Amino acid sequence: MMRKTKRKYGCPVEFSIDLLSGKWKTVILSRLKVQPMRYGELRHDIPSLSDKILTERLRDLCEAGFVRQERSGSTSRYCLTRRGEMLKPMLQSLYDWGQDNAESFGVRFLSVELN
Amino acid sequence: MMRKTKRKYGCPVEFSIDLLSGKWKTVILSRLKVQPMRYGELRHDIPSLSDKILTERLRDLCEAGFVRQERSGSTSRYCLTRRGEMLKPMLQSLYDWGQDNAESFGVRFLSVELN
Repeated sequence: MMRKTKRKYGCPVEFSIDLLSGKWKTVILSRLKVQPMRYGELRHDIPSLSDKILTERLRDLCEAGFVRQERSGSTSRYCLTRRGEMLKPMLQSLYDWGQDNAESFGVRFLSVELN
Repeated sequence: MMRKTKRKYGCPVEFSIDLLSGKWKTVILSRLKVQPMRYGELRHDIPSLSDKILTERLRDLCEAGFVRQERSGSTSRYCLTRRGEMLKPMLQSLYDWGQDNAESFGVRFLSVELN
């Protein structure tokens, strides 16, 4: 489902950021960029995210048309829609920057196998 | 000045997003990506941003080493540091995505001359 906002923004960057407000939507999308995932897999991969917040953010992402639930038999996985796929260059840039600059900030990652 | 966080993050995307928390830092950086700007020019270009918030965000961005003040005679302009320049691909992706998807969301921009 596509949601029209009919808002005016100062610039395209303000719009992009607003749509993905907060950090968790972007983090969830960056996981689904790698592959479709079941709810439990997302929950496991992003342990600092509570059940309540993960459920809410997934619902928001589905409503905004970035993510959809893909059902196959008794299992259900979340995956990027075509609109979500369009975010891939942005998600990759965020990933690359974080990866390239972690050391100079003294930051370490719990999981680095993603790309 | 570079600030070391010594934190652990779940993934590089979480780190990148956290460092640029909120939307205004990214919006300010995206303006400085185009060219160095005086305080008054930034204030004029991002009218929905109050003096208080613009001042605070610029201070945060300087402290984190993304932006520096460049003084020339009696004028002073804000510009990206080398660390700030490294964000350019990310800022460009955010811009491009916002630009490409505005119409399908019914969104309009107050200023579109930037890139």
